[in-house]
Parts: sequence; C-alpha cells; structure tokens
Amino acid sequence: MNDAALDDDLPATTLADPGEVGLVEPRDFTSAEPFACDDGRVLPAFTLRYETYGRLNAARDNAVLVCHALSGDHHCAGIHSLADKKPGWWNNLIGPGKAVDTNHHFVICANVLGGCQGSTGPLSPDPATGRPYGLAFPAVTIRDMVRSQKRLLDHLGVKRLRCALGGSMGGMQALQWAIEYPDFCDKVLAMATTAREGAQAIAFNEVGRQAIMQDPDWNHGDYPKGGGPRVGLAIARMMAHITYLSDASMDRKFGRRTVKPRLPAAPAPALAEEAALAPGHAEPPPGTAAFDVSFEVQSYLRYQGQSFINRFDANTYLYITRAIDGFDLAASYGGTLEQAFAPVKARTLVVGFTSDWLFPPEQNREIVLALQRAGKHASYAELATDLGHDSFLLESPELYALVRAFLERD
Amino acid sequence: MNDAALDDDLPATTLADPGEVGLVEPRDFTSAEPFACDDGRVLPAFTLRYETYGRLNAARDNAVLVCHALSGDHHCAGIHSLADKKPGWWNNLIGPGKAVDTNHHFVICANVLGGCQGSTGPLSPDPATGRPYGLAFPAVTIRDMVRSQKRLLDHLGVKRLRCALGGSMGGMQALQWAIEYPDFCDKVLAMATTAREGAQAIAFNEVGRQAIMQDPDWNHGDYPKGGGPRVGLAIARMMAHITYLSDASMDRKFGRRTVKPRLPAAPAPALAEEAALAPGHAEPPPGTAAFDVSFEVQSYLRYQGQSFINRFDANTYLYITRAIDGFDLAASYGGTLEQAFAPVKARTLVVGFTSDWLFPPEQNREIVLALQRAGKHASYAELATDLGHDSFLLESPELYALVRAFLERD
Repeated sequence: MNDAALDDDLPATTLADPGEVGLVEPRDFTSAEPFACDDGRVLPAFTLRYETYGRLNAARDNAVLVCHALSGDHHCAGIHSLADKKPGWWNNLIGPGKAVDTNHHFVICANVLGGCQGSTGPLSPDPATGRPYGLAFPAVTIRDMVRSQKRLLDHLGVKRLRCALGGSMGGMQALQWAIEYPDFCDKVLAMATTAREGAQAIAFNEVGRQAIMQDPDWNHGDYPKGGGPRVGLAIARMMAHITYLSDASMDRKFGRRTVKPRLPAAPAPALAEEAALAPGHAEPPPGTAAFDVSFEVQSYLRYQGQSFINRFDANTYLYITRAIDGFDLAASYGGTLEQAFAPVKARTLVVGFTSDWLFPPEQNREIVLALQRAGKHASYAELATDLGHDSFLLESPELYALVRAFLERD
Repeated sequence: MNDAALDDDLPATTLADPGEVGLVEPRDFTSAEPFACDDGRVLPAFTLRYETYGRLNAARDNAVLVCHALSGDHHCAGIHSLADKKPGWWNNLIGPGKAVDTNHHFVICANVLGGCQGSTGPLSPDPATGRPYGLAFPAVTIRDMVRSQKRLLDHLGVKRLRCALGGSMGGMQALQWAIEYPDFCDKVLAMATTAREGAQAIAFNEVGRQAIMQDPDWNHGDYPKGGGPRVGLAIARMMAHITYLSDASMDRKFGRRTVKPRLPAAPAPALAEEAALAPGHAEPPPGTAAFDVSFEVQSYLRYQGQSFINRFDANTYLYITRAIDGFDLAASYGGTLEQAFAPVKARTLVVGFTSDWLFPPEQNREIVLALQRAGKHASYAELATDLGHDSFLLESPELYALVRAFLERD
C-alpha cells in the first residue's frame, strides 16, 4: 500500500459519524534501507503497518505520534468497516473535536518493530531463510522502535513532531523520542509509565515468558504462523491482565459473584457450559471434583486469555516484554536520569494514576523531577482513579482536558 | 507413629541449642471415624501429620495451635536432624523464651487436610480404588481443615485451646476456629489475612490453577506420586511468589541487577550456565537471541519455581487454592460478618502489614471492626513494613512483642 497522507484527493479518513474518525485503512511503510538494531543485528529492510487520522498541514508540523503499549497496535481510532463493533483502542481520546483533535492534528500510529500486527517481527519471513525469523529476530529495544518510527515520519514528510504520546510502553517510547530527537520533537506526553522497569514488573514479565517458553508448542520459537504456544500465551495474558487492573476495580466489577446461582462456601463441581471456556481440556472424569469456573472473575480471565491468543503472537510477546524489561533510561545514557534527559528540548507532561500499581505514581513523578532537575519544561499530573494501570485507556474527562490543553498550548 | 505429648518419659523435643526448639519429630494422627466434608463427600478415615513443641500442662489448657498457609506444613519450628540447615518455617517466632514460648505453651502444628506433606490429600490412596484420590478427593474447605484439627486436639487430650494462630490461610483457619468452637478457643491471632477472598486474589489463584491444569502432565489430576505437572506448578509458584513480596522489597533485593556484568539496555543472548536454571528446555539454537536469565530477579524466581515442585503436589495446590477462594465468612454464616462472628467468645488480635497487597491492611482491619460491632474483644495492630505479604514470616521484634503480650495476657 502507498501512503497518501499528503494527497488531497484521497481523504485520510471517511467519517461514519461526525465527531468520529470513522472508516480508516491501515497502510504499510517499507524501509528498504538496512536497519541496525541496538543488539548489533541488521535488518536488511523492515515494514511498519500504520494508520493516520487528520491531515498533515502545509508547514508539516502538526503531526502527533501515538505510541502503543505491549498488546496494542496501529489501529488506535476509527473503524475498519461499518460492521466493526469496536473502534481503535484509543478512539475515546482521538477524533475530530476530541482531546487529540484530528481537525488540527495529523495523528500517526504504527505497530512497533517486533510486533505481530503487520509490522516486521519474529513472525515475518527472514530473507536469509524464507522462514519466519523466530528467535533469529534481533532483540529489539524501545530505542529501536523509536528509530524505526522516525523513518516512517520522514517518509510521511513530517518536519516536526508536535507531540509523541503514549501510555505504559507507549510512554517509554515517547520519552525516548524526546531524548533521541530533541530538535524534532516539540512535546512529549507520557502516561502510566516509568523511566526504568522495576524488579516486580520484570518478575511478572518473566513468569509470562516462562509460561510461553515452557509450552511444548513453543519449540524454541520455531512454529508456523497461527500455531505456537497458545496455552502458554493465554496463561501469560491472564496474569498480565490482573496487573492492568486494580484490586478495587476487580472487586467492583466481579467481587465474588459466581457464574451460577450462589455456590456454597466450598465451590461446586464443574459447570459443563463454562468448561468450554477452559482452553484445551476435555470433560473431567465423572464423579470427580473438577476445577472449573465458579467465579465470574475466573470466566472473565479465561475469556481474556482465549481472545488474546487469537490476535497475538507468542514470540512477539517474548520480544516486546524483553524490550520493556531492558528499558532503563538512566543506565542507557550515562548513569543518571538527569544525564539521560540532558538533550531534551520538548515540553513534557507526565500523567500518573493513583491506582496504577504496575507503574505507580512515584515512578511517573520521578520522571518529571529528573526533567526539572535537568532544567527542562516538565509538569506532572496525578489523576485519582481506582481503575489501575489501564486508567489511561478509559473514559476520563479529566484526562481528556489535560491532553487537550497540553496539545493546544504553545 | 504414636503420639507421646503426654508421656513424660518421651520428651517432645530435644534441644540442640538453648532458646531453640531443637530436634523434633513429626507424628501421624489417624482418625478412624468417617469425616463428612462440607461438599458432602465422606472420608472413611484421615491422617494428619503434625509436630508438637513444649508440653501440655496438667490442666490441659496451654495448647497453641499454629495454622499454616498455602505452601506451609506441620514443620514450623526446630530441626529434623542435626544436619538440617533450615529450621521449621516459623522458628523465629516459636521456641523456649520466644514470642510463642514453648516453656509455657504446648504448640501444635498439623499439615492441613488436603495437604501433601503427610496429611491425607489428593495424593493419598483412595480406599475405594487403592490409587491416589486425585480429583476424587473432596473439595475441602477451610472449615474442613479446622474440624479435622479439632479431632487431633481431642486425641492429644487438649481441653481448651489457649490460642489458634496463623497468617494468610493460617489466619483464615484461626478465625474459623473462633466461630466453630467458641467454648474451646480462648484466643485467636490472625495475621495478613482476610474474612473474604477478593476478586484479585481469586484471579491470581485462577491463573496458577490454569497453569497447572493446562500442563499435559496434569492429566485431570491422575498422575503418579512424584510425577504430575511440574512445569505448570513451577509457573503457578513463580507468579504467586511475586504476590507475597512487595515492589519495594523486590527493588531493594534485586533491583535491575543482572546475573552477569552489566548488560546493555538490550538484554544479551543466553548465558549458558544460567540456562540450566530454566526448567525443561534445552540449549537454544545457535545464532538466536535466546530468552534466558538476564536479571537476578529472573534467576531467583526460576529457583523458587524449581524448588517448589520438589516439595509440593500440584493437586494439593489446586485443592488448597480453591479452599482459599471459597473462604467468605459473611456468606457462609448468614450474610454479614457480624452474624458470622456472633458466636465468638475468643479474644482476637488481628495484625495487618502496610505493604501487604495480597491481603491489604483494610481487609485485616475489616475483621476487627466487624468483631467489635458484634460486641467482641478484638484489637487490631498494623505494622509498617515494606516486605509485603510475607512480612508475617519475617524477623520483626515489633511482631514478636505483640504476639508475646497477646498470648501472655489473661
């Protein structure tokens, strides 16, 4: 596919409803120049799948780059067909008249390098063998993701980036943008993120990777597209999903509600119709106390695991969690965060959420304190929510107002 | 083995050092009477493996029952041989002159019903078939555990229980003791616990169970002793272990320290000597970016997973986590906690720990508030630690002082 962001005859989006981005189409950008990754390996070429909303202005300086999180992709707003039931993952934030206003901004979002939604990653064919890269894919870093995005922006004719914006791993990329391309990047907005992946977060990622790598279907990463360690990937996702929520939000959403009329204190034997949700195991032997779904939260988690394996690749999960675990700005740039932030010219806004225990407020605040100590324009906002890490993705008029004001401010 | 707690000629313990419980020997109590479990199934007989320290006094009213947590056992103090490097799991709290003073108290600790350390559980032979119960074992509840312990105390000649004492699932048992045996139980000391397993805690248990049940070696719980789903059980343990610690303690203990001289931001390929720690997978193919240990926390978690599978049974893990998930005192006794606590006569002390995010302080405080509303003698202490849920097991002079004072007070 060709890019047409600058082609006035080809609208970037077709609105289905006023106030919505509407119908959008993903495009592929292929960089034919070799790309040297941080681990020393060289990709002879790579592709990024991306979407754009709004139009690049004549000065080519109204672009906003949206960076996605671990399990996200390039489809952050609009719909792909009128039959789509769910719009892109940040549709609540992005659109005409919304906080990231596509009437004013040219919004770009690309699936990360190493991803599995159309960008080059471990599932892509290795030109050396014609088979999927698997573990021969380079150990991509957050910096590699950002440097590959720069090529896309150059290709699109973007002269200056009005803002790099993202939450969680998207926030890591946004911060890396400010450091790597100080003269290109006017503003950075990072939410629910960290300047340094901590031990607990690494530990959760490690358990997820183990679940994948111990699944016999992983086979050292050598499996056909659509195959692979589905059981291990579902386990990894179920666990990670808990870390995106909060105790309070889970208690409100599920509490101890059961999937059938109230069970006694001792959970009852298997519910046959729910057993179907459990991936890959057949009916329990008759007369046994099976361990099937009793509580709504169990059914919900199993559903999360199952739907994830239908849209995500296990090797990409390994690669991206490793990129996240490797993220440590201070260590990567001289030893202190102030040193890391020394080149930054962008104005920065960091938003933490009180109930986020994966990247808690302290870790978000620390970023701003270091930027301020380094003499930069940086501000911090902390939003009181009880929705956990995922707060940045959810409906929040307070967040919308912050984002809008930050993007519109000169 | 026969019990000899009342036999003056056979010392319950041999001291290896003054101030220590010293050499101890586990014993087995077998109840030959049928035992009806809460799920309606009947065990024709059952065995509890237990240890005792100190002596039962003439009035037979100085017994302290220690209740263990999910992965604990009957061996809570002393050593089994002079070659033992590690004493029982609560040796810091229990011994002559210690907070639970075996010079004054007759301390009893039994592996729970459903356990795998000598008590009757899914690994035990089903008299009906001669093969391990597996999933034919009853769906034991916390109440079943407590009712089976009562038979042991009766057998030992205990006339009154001075205190039922435990943390985490041990705290649940202690609370259940106060409700089920109000005229037998003088005091209850529950730590780092809850009156009602919440959605987040159920969710983590569910992921652990899925990891076990999706392991092909689980085979619906039908596996020989020593076999079974080792990979799944290790995954479950690694994940659960994170919930026992805190972000702060993990950061202090491991931070981002690597197992080799500092790695670049992008983790380096496999370290061959560490790969041995990864359960069950062979050398990565040459020339690939393997996903082996980079950070100390990864190595630590893998070790935790591996050592657990050598001492624990996967079906017991399923059964005990289900008993925990089923724990909801209010729902089990009429609808409110005040109703549940109505029969209680014991004085109660509940201890919460500020950094415990598995059973956070609020959940501990809620128990005491309900007891107080029900007109009971109940007090709450909150200890400031940053060691997470496991705080109750760790060295803490503050905790020792609280426990000592509570046990000695009339």
